[in-house]
Amino acid sequence: MPVIDITLLPGYGSETETRLVQRVALATRSVIAAPAAGTTVYVKHASTYQRDNRVMTQGGGPLPEASGLVRAFLGLMQDRDLAGAARFLAPGFEMYFPGAAPMQRLEQLVEWGRGRYQRVGKTYARFDESWGDGVTVVYCSGTLDGVWLDGSAFEGIRFIDRFEIAEGLIRRQDVWNDLAESMPGR
Amino acid sequence: MPVIDITLLPGYGSETETRLVQRVALATRSVIAAPAAGTTVYVKHASTYQRDNRVMTQGGGPLPEASGLVRAFLGLMQDRDLAGAARFLAPGFEMYFPGAAPMQRLEQLVEWGRGRYQRVGKTYARFDESWGDGVTVVYCSGTLDGVWLDGSAFEGIRFIDRFEIAEGLIRRQDVWNDLAESMPGR
Amino acid sequence: MPVIDITLLPGYGSETETRLVQRVALATRSVIAAPAAGTTVYVKHASTYQRDNRVMTQGGGPLPEASGLVRAFLGLMQDRDLAGAARFLAPGFEMYFPGAAPMQRLEQLVEWGRGRYQRVGKTYARFDESWGDGVTVVYCSGTLDGVWLDGSAFEGIRFIDRFEIAEGLIRRQDVWNDLAESMPGR
Amino acid sequence: MPVIDITLLPGYGSETETRLVQRVALATRSVIAAPAAGTTVYVKHASTYQRDNRVMTQGGGPLPEASGLVRAFLGLMQDRDLAGAARFLAPGFEMYFPGAAPMQRLEQLVEWGRGRYQRVGKTYARFDESWGDGVTVVYCSGTLDGVWLDGSAFEGIRFIDRFEIAEGLIRRQDVWNDLAESMPGR
Amino acid sequence: MPVIDITLLPGYGSETETRLVQRVALATRSVIAAPAAGTTVYVKHASTYQRDNRVMTQGGGPLPEASGLVRAFLGLMQDRDLAGAARFLAPGFEMYFPGAAPMQRLEQLVEWGRGRYQRVGKTYARFDESWGDGVTVVYCSGTLDGVWLDGSAFEGIRFIDRFEIAEGLIRRQDVWNDLAESMPGR
Amino acid sequence: MPVIDITLLPGYGSETETRLVQRVALATRSVIAAPAAGTTVYVKHASTYQRDNRVMTQGGGPLPEASGLVRAFLGLMQDRDLAGAARFLAPGFEMYFPGAAPMQRLEQLVEWGRGRYQRVGKTYARFDESWGDGVTVVYCSGTLDGVWLDGSAFEGIRFIDRFEIAEGLIRRQDVWNDLAESMPGR
Repeated sequence: MPVIDITLLPGYGSETETRLVQRVALATRSVIAAPAAGTTVYVKHASTYQRDNRVMTQGGGPLPEASGLVRAFLGLMQDRDLAGAARFLAPGFEMYFPGAAPMQRLEQLVEWGRGRYQRVGKTYARFDESWGDGVTVVYCSGTLDGVWLDGSAFEGIRFIDRFEIAEGLIRRQDVWNDLAESMPGR
Repeated sequence: MPVIDITLLPGYGSETETRLVQRVALATRSVIAAPAAGTTVYVKHASTYQRDNRVMTQGGGPLPEASGLVRAFLGLMQDRDLAGAARFLAPGFEMYFPGAAPMQRLEQLVEWGRGRYQRVGKTYARFDESWGDGVTVVYCSGTLDGVWLDGSAFEGIRFIDRFEIAEGLIRRQDVWNDLAESMPGR
Repeated sequence: MPVIDITLLPGYGSETETRLVQRVALATRSVIAAPAAGTTVYVKHASTYQRDNRVMTQGGGPLPEASGLVRAFLGLMQDRDLAGAARFLAPGFEMYFPGAAPMQRLEQLVEWGRGRYQRVGKTYARFDESWGDGVTVVYCSGTLDGVWLDGSAFEGIRFIDRFEIAEGLIRRQDVWNDLAESMPGR
Repeated sequence: MPVIDITLLPGYGSETETRLVQRVALATRSVIAAPAAGTTVYVKHASTYQRDNRVMTQGGGPLPEASGLVRAFLGLMQDRDLAGAARFLAPGFEMYFPGAAPMQRLEQLVEWGRGRYQRVGKTYARFDESWGDGVTVVYCSGTLDGVWLDGSAFEGIRFIDRFEIAEGLIRRQDVWNDLAESMPGR
Repeated sequence: MPVIDITLLPGYGSETETRLVQRVALATRSVIAAPAAGTTVYVKHASTYQRDNRVMTQGGGPLPEASGLVRAFLGLMQDRDLAGAARFLAPGFEMYFPGAAPMQRLEQLVEWGRGRYQRVGKTYARFDESWGDGVTVVYCSGTLDGVWLDGSAFEGIRFIDRFEIAEGLIRRQDVWNDLAESMPGR
Repeated sequence: MPVIDITLLPGYGSETETRLVQRVALATRSVIAAPAAGTTVYVKHASTYQRDNRVMTQGGGPLPEASGLVRAFLGLMQDRDLAGAARFLAPGFEMYFPGAAPMQRLEQLVEWGRGRYQRVGKTYARFDESWGDGVTVVYCSGTLDGVWLDGSAFEGIRFIDRFEIAEGLIRRQDVWNDLAESMPGR
C-alpha cells in the first residue's frame, strides 16, 4: 500500500512515464510512511478521453527535467558561452548574488565577477528539485574553487544556487556562497 | 488528463489525504505540462488489502509535514529554547554554517554566534520541499536582521537554510548567508 | 462487457446513484450492441478528491428528474393551478401551440384555449428524455379528450409536447396535436 | 468530478468510442449538476475479458447513430426512393400521421399525401435522441413547406416526427404537424 | 505486479474478504511466477451496482470454507454422530470405498466397516482444495490407525479422501487407502 | 458482481491471460456465491510499472499448467520413457506407492511394479488442481487396467495420484489404488 493508478493518453514515451511513476512514488512517500516495497505506481493508457466536452487525443507534452536544464545552463556558463546560456532564460530573468545588486543579463554577472576573482569553478555535491504549481525550484550546492584576484588559489568554498524554472526557462537565480568569508583583503 | 487513482487503507484522515493528492498532483505536473484544470487526483479506500501474503489492516502512518517541522525548530531556536529544539534532531545531526567548523550541538551554534552578532532574526520569504527516497529536504530563505557586535543594526541580509528530514527528525542543517559581505570590520 | 466505473464524492444518496447507473448503462447501450446482462455500471466513492488545484468535498448536487418535473407541471396545469405551474418556468419561457402565436404566460394559454374547447385532458402514453449539454428535452405524447365549444365530446386525439429543461426549470414548450383535424366547424 | 472509467475490448474504433464517452458524459450530467470541465470520461481496453465463464474476444458491435439513420431515411423519402427507404424499416413497421389511419407501407403514405398537397418538404430545426432499453427514440422537428392541392404555397408550418429505432431499423413513426390548421378549404 | 482490484458490494465482512484476497492471490500465482511481495490484491466497495438492468444491493452470500465443512463432517463421523453428519450430505450423495459397492447412506458405511476393522481413526496430514465451476473438491490425506477384527492394532496406513462440495453440501466422497495391503488374513 | 480488474505488464500472451482470468474467477466463486453470469474478470496492461523503487518492464514469466505437466509426465511413464519422465522431477523427488517403501528413482518404481503386474494402464476420470503458496498440487484419479502376474486381466480398479509441482517440477508423488483389494493370491 498504496497503489497508484495513473491514466494517461498514449504518446509520452518510456522516459517520461518512468520519471512520472518515480516522482509520484516520492511525493506519496513524503506524506505517508509507506515502504518502497509497498508503493506501487503504474501508468495505463486511455484509448479515448473526454473532459470539458472535448475529446482529447494528446496530453500536455513532457516537460524537460528542470535539474537537467539547470546543469546544461551551468555548463554553458562555465564554458563562458553566454549566448548559449541566455537561451535558457525567461523574459524578466533576474539574478541575485552575494554583495551585488540584482542583475538581469549574464554579461553583467561576468563583468561583476571580474572584480572578485580571476577564475571560479563549481563542484556539485547535490541537486534537489522542489515541484510547485507551475514552477519547479532547483537547488544545487557544493564547493567553489578558483583563483583570487591576487593570484592565490581557493577551493572547498561552499555555495548554493536556487533556480526557478517555469515553462522550460529559468526565470530567477539566487546564489549564496562563503566567498566573502575567505576573500583576501577582507 | 491525467487521472490519478490512489488506493489507501482507511484511517489517514482528511488532512493527510489532502496533502497526498496535492503533492501527487504537483509531482505529476512537474513531469508533464498538464494544466491544473485537467489534473484529477483522488483517494479511494480499500476494504481489505493483501500484499506479500499478508492482509494488512493499517498503512504506514502519516508523516509530519517537513517544512512545518522545520518552522517549529526554527521558532524554538529563535526563542532560544535549545532543549525544545534539540528534540527535533536526529542522532548524528550536524550543522554547517558559513565560516564555522561543522557543529553537532545547538549550544555550539549559540556560542559561535556570540562572536558574530549581538542578535539575529529571520524573515522567511519562502519554504521549498524536495521529496526524496526516505528523506525530505527543506529549503527556507529570506533575510536576516539584527545587531552587530558593535551595536549597529543590520537588516535585509539574504540567507538560505537547507535541512534534511528523515523519519521526522532533522539530520543535517546547512546555512548560507551574506553576513560576511556586510559584517563591520571586514 | 463493458464495465463502467464511476467515481463520485459521497453524499448523493441511493436514488441519485441508481438513476446515474441506469442512465449511463442506457447511454452506453445506445452506442454499442452490448446486452444488458453484460453491461455493468457501478459507483465508487472517493474519499478525497482534487481537480484544478482544489480539494473538493462535495460534488454538484443531484438534478431533479426532468420528466418528473414535467409531470408535476402538467398536473398543476390540469388542475388550473397557474401560480403553482408558473414556478416551474424559467425567465424567458415561451410556448408554441398549434395555430397560436408564441405565448409567454400561462394565462395567455388558458385564455387562448377558451376559443378552442370547453375542456381538455391528457392521457399520457409515453415520456422520453433526451439528455443534452446543459439541457434535458422531455417529450410526452398520448391522447387528448375533452369537450368542444359546441358541447360535443372528443377523445383519442393525438398530441405531443416537447419541453426544454435547464437548471431545473422549463424554458420552452412546444405542442403539436391533431385537434385541428377534428375540430367541429373546420 | 465525476470520473468515469469505461472498460472495453479493443476493436471499436475511434468514432464509436468518441460517441460513447460523449453520451456517457451527457447521461451523467443529466443526473448531477457536474460542470463539463469536471466531467471526465475515458475508455480503456481490456486485454483479456471473461464473464459468464466465457473469455470474450470481441464486444457487441457498434450501433449506427439512430438520428443519422433517421436522416438517411428521411432523405430517401424526400427523394421518393421508396425502395431505398423501405430498407430502413423493421418488420411490423407502422406509421401514424395526423388524420390518417395507421399505415404499414411507404406507398400508402405517398398515396395518402396526394389527397393533401402537391408537394411537401421539411426543414429540420433539431434532432433529439432518447436512449432506452433496446430502443432509441429519435425526434426531429422543424417546419414544412410545399404546395397545396389548389396550387397555393405554404411554408413555416411546424412538424415533429418520432421514430423508434431498434436493432438498426425503424419500427414505428409518429408524425404531428400543423397542416390542418392552415389547409385551404378547412 | 500484478495488482488485482476486486469490486464488491459491501456486507461480506472481513473474514470473507480476507479469504477472497488470499485465494485470488494464490490463483494468480498458479499462472504466473509473480513473487508474493509483488502480488497485491484488494477489495473495494461499490456504493451502487447495476448489471443486467438491475440495481443490486447485495451480492451472493459468502460460502462456507469447503475444507472446514469436510473437517466438521469427518469429526461427526469419527464421533459416530451419523445424524449430525448426514446433515452435510446433498441429495444423491454417494460414497466410493475400496472394495465396496457404492454406498448412499452413512449407516451402510458403518455396517460395512464392521466387516473390516473393530475401530479406525484418522490423522490428517494435509487438506487441499480445488476450486471448480460450482463445485469445490476437498482432498484430505494422512494415516489410519485402529484395531483389526482379530484385535491386532494398526497405524500409519495411508489414506486419501476426495469430497465434492456444491452449495454447501457434500455430494460425493471417494476414499482410497492401503488397508488391503496390510489387512490380516489377506 | 464481483468485478475483478487485473493489472499486468504486457507480454504474457493470450493463453496465459485466459488461464489467469479463468482461475481468478474460480477462486472468487469458491468464496462467495456469485453466479458465473455476474463474475467479470479482465486483464489490463500497465504501460509503465514501478514497485520497490524499481521500474519493471517484464513480469514473472508464465508457469506451465501443472496438470498438463503431470499428464506429460504420466504419458512418458506409460511409454516407459524413463529418461524423458525424469526431466520433470525436482531434486529430492520422492514417490509413495501402496505397499512400497518411498522410492526416489523411476527405475525403482518400474522394478517394483514387476513384482505386482505384467502390465498396467490408466484411464483418467478427472484432474484437479489445488493452488498453494509456491506449490500446485495436482490430483488425478480414474481406473487401472492391466494384466496380473498370473496372466489374468484386470480393469476398472480405482486409483488416485497426488503430485506436488513447484517451479515447474514434480517434487513428490503419492499414489493410492485398490489393486490390493483384487490382486490374485491375496
